[in-house]
Amino acid sequence: MLPPMTPPDVPIDLEEFRIRLEESPERAAEGISEVHAADAAAWLLDLEAEEAWPVFAALDAEHQAEILEYAEDDLRTDMVTRMSASDLGDILEELPSDEAVDVLADVEESVAEEALSSILPETADELRALSEYDADTAGGLMATEFVTVLEGDRLGDAVKAIRQQGEDAEEALDVFVVDADGRPVGFIADRVLLSQPIHTPVLEAMVEPQTISVGADQEEAAQLIDKYGLVSLGVVDAAGRLIGVVSAEDASEVFGEEAEEDLMRIVGTAAETRQTRLTVKKRVRQRLPLMGLTVLAGLLSATLLRIFLGEGEPGTEGAGSTDILRYLPLIIGLAGNVGVQSSTILVRAFATGELDATRERSVLGGEMSVGAWIGLLCGIVIAITVGGLEPGNLGLAVGVATMVSVSCAAVLGCLIPVTCRRVGIDPAIVAGPFLICLSDLAGSLIFIVVAQAILR
Amino acid sequence: MLPPMTPPDVPIDLEEFRIRLEESPERAAEGISEVHAADAAAWLLDLEAEEAWPVFAALDAEHQAEILEYAEDDLRTDMVTRMSASDLGDILEELPSDEAVDVLADVEESVAEEALSSILPETADELRALSEYDADTAGGLMATEFVTVLEGDRLGDAVKAIRQQGEDAEEALDVFVVDADGRPVGFIADRVLLSQPIHTPVLEAMVEPQTISVGADQEEAAQLIDKYGLVSLGVVDAAGRLIGVVSAEDASEVFGEEAEEDLMRIVGTAAETRQTRLTVKKRVRQRLPLMGLTVLAGLLSATLLRIFLGEGEPGTEGAGSTDILRYLPLIIGLAGNVGVQSSTILVRAFATGELDATRERSVLGGEMSVGAWIGLLCGIVIAITVGGLEPGNLGLAVGVATMVSVSCAAVLGCLIPVTCRRVGIDPAIVAGPFLICLSDLAGSLIFIVVAQAILR
Repeated sequence: MLPPMTPPDVPIDLEEFRIRLEESPERAAEGISEVHAADAAAWLLDLEAEEAWPVFAALDAEHQAEILEYAEDDLRTDMVTRMSASDLGDILEELPSDEAVDVLADVEESVAEEALSSILPETADELRALSEYDADTAGGLMATEFVTVLEGDRLGDAVKAIRQQGEDAEEALDVFVVDADGRPVGFIADRVLLSQPIHTPVLEAMVEPQTISVGADQEEAAQLIDKYGLVSLGVVDAAGRLIGVVSAEDASEVFGEEAEEDLMRIVGTAAETRQTRLTVKKRVRQRLPLMGLTVLAGLLSATLLRIFLGEGEPGTEGAGSTDILRYLPLIIGLAGNVGVQSSTILVRAFATGELDATRERSVLGGEMSVGAWIGLLCGIVIAITVGGLEPGNLGLAVGVATMVSVSCAAVLGCLIPVTCRRVGIDPAIVAGPFLICLSDLAGSLIFIVVAQAILR
Repeated sequence: MLPPMTPPDVPIDLEEFRIRLEESPERAAEGISEVHAADAAAWLLDLEAEEAWPVFAALDAEHQAEILEYAEDDLRTDMVTRMSASDLGDILEELPSDEAVDVLADVEESVAEEALSSILPETADELRALSEYDADTAGGLMATEFVTVLEGDRLGDAVKAIRQQGEDAEEALDVFVVDADGRPVGFIADRVLLSQPIHTPVLEAMVEPQTISVGADQEEAAQLIDKYGLVSLGVVDAAGRLIGVVSAEDASEVFGEEAEEDLMRIVGTAAETRQTRLTVKKRVRQRLPLMGLTVLAGLLSATLLRIFLGEGEPGTEGAGSTDILRYLPLIIGLAGNVGVQSSTILVRAFATGELDATRERSVLGGEMSVGAWIGLLCGIVIAITVGGLEPGNLGLAVGVATMVSVSCAAVLGCLIPVTCRRVGIDPAIVAGPFLICLSDLAGSLIFIVVAQAILR
């Protein structure tokens, strides 16, 4: 698929890649086929999907598959949904089974079926079977490339088995010893195969295998791998037969993702990692449910506070200071949420390397826009609702004050972590506690000052 | 060190371990020397240090070292600080270098020096050199057991090198190819050694090595391993010579820990994982700084609100509803913090498997006590401070109301995640947003009702 080319002596860098991209997608593709697939995947991820696709399409199936192995889910989905069924078939043959299943899950069922019908029937059946497992289970995580030997074998037989499996075995991790029914009874690390004589019986060299049932939760698989420090975990069916393996790398992704996703859920945005790569629109949409809930709770608390406190007071002389104060829980909740969301996303983006110097300005701008949009939308809803519930222009006052304080909270939530990082303070320490205190304080005061100015 | 024993056919389980523990530490030690060291480490972690120590002490150095490899930092520190220098020397010889350095960092310098002087001078010098690196750097993370071959070698030479290194090489991960000066030029996976003919030149089998400078941040090392999907990352000195390796397992610990620690910092407690294993006293102490900050910010905002709103009002007719309302930001901040801390800790404890059914009751009880203590302490401080600042018994009212609402928030923060998990809702979704709304709402109302009751 690539035009004939003389490979450069030194792999190109990001700058050179961008220069070539201006020339043509083919020139850019030539360049990234020479760099590590992980770098290629990172560079493509930074482009718009429309820009990345022609470069990706100009690569051969082997390079495409390599890049997909390292690609974030977003990039993978963007690329494979644009591929023809026959090109898809080519990369399915190149990919390890667990990655192939992820690709199949991305495309429409009819395209997946067409792609599968173009490859080796045996591989296709295996992938169809793997696709049946729930993505959150050990079965959804496992790959089917693994090497086994029998209880009566010697280490030399294991080495032979690895060589026979050829390329597939390169993906496999160590060797499982199984009984006549295919049930795992032992595990032999590659390093043991290398360091002990080949005539050693496997029964003498093996250690106890760790296994998990195919339907078990993927977190459970990750916990086992973590607890026992495993390289790979055997996955068994209901009869106890070995049907797949989960690698430590898969487990570490599950763990990293789970902690990250829990963090994102707890601060009230979507459980998606790499938030700074999403569009402003998408980020606003993901955070609106929590904001809606916060507005609702805030309005409810303002109403309940009126009932508990001010029987008879409202309406008597227009809106006064007590009326404004009843909306403090609303504004504190909203401003706190917005600030903590921005700061948390930045703190994690720093930690994972997702946010480097080249992207700082655009990421900060993006997060602040998200805050401003949320402030605007909540402010409008609040102005209308409070305007209906309360006398005078209290609705306008509370609505505008909300907009101002929420936008300020977003700015604080962005500037504080960035500043901390610049001066060498751990941004995470400041992002939560300190930011919440500051945004509560600033939010309350801005709210009161703006609301009073409008009321007078 | 162990008395003669007939090993059981089936390894003991936790229940049997507890029964044996009642008999004698030696009987319990016999039992845990038969199970996987990861299980032994988990069982010992659940005991009080005073109870775990005699069991640990009754094991031989090899078993002790194995358990320490899997032990949480807390258990490791508890055990090694009780060991004599000569016993410590024995386990230093058994441990991989990176773990040995962690052990040395736990004990007093004089004990560490005495232990080091009792082992092979060569190993001791290596450990002393490793101890010099900052724990947060690639140097602090690396181990020095690795296998190298020269550029002119063949794969068979690599296998020979692995066999020569003997036991040490079992810890090592794959093989680095270095030039005459010891600078890494290539990397060969064990699986490649097994699957290709032994007379293949290493230059044909190797891939480009990934390396990092010894002084680089440990997060950077973890990011590289994650990005390139490495099994091991070479660590080089200023001259570019290979001096250590960081394994994928180390990296995954760094990553998991960093996400977890960021989460803990953001909700305002200490950046320590496994919070449910800490004593109530320690947890309260770790959270007090944030609570102090929140109280301060809340009192400041109440004072500023008086200035902005109620010139002339206070003191005229005793404390009224406006005065109570000015303390809403304080109570919302405190109750929100306490609730979110408890729920976050529970959510993560579920996810990591730290909290299973056997510990549920004690963990819930612990977290609620932490909340009650924080409520009590903050309530007293607030009652005294507000009592001094405001007229009438407003101080008493605000203080008592704080205690009640903070304790309620802690109960909500514990019960909501547990209930969600029981009924099959992801606790993380509810732990943050929903809980904050609920605790803001409940906190405000409880506060107002209690404060008014006291004022009347």
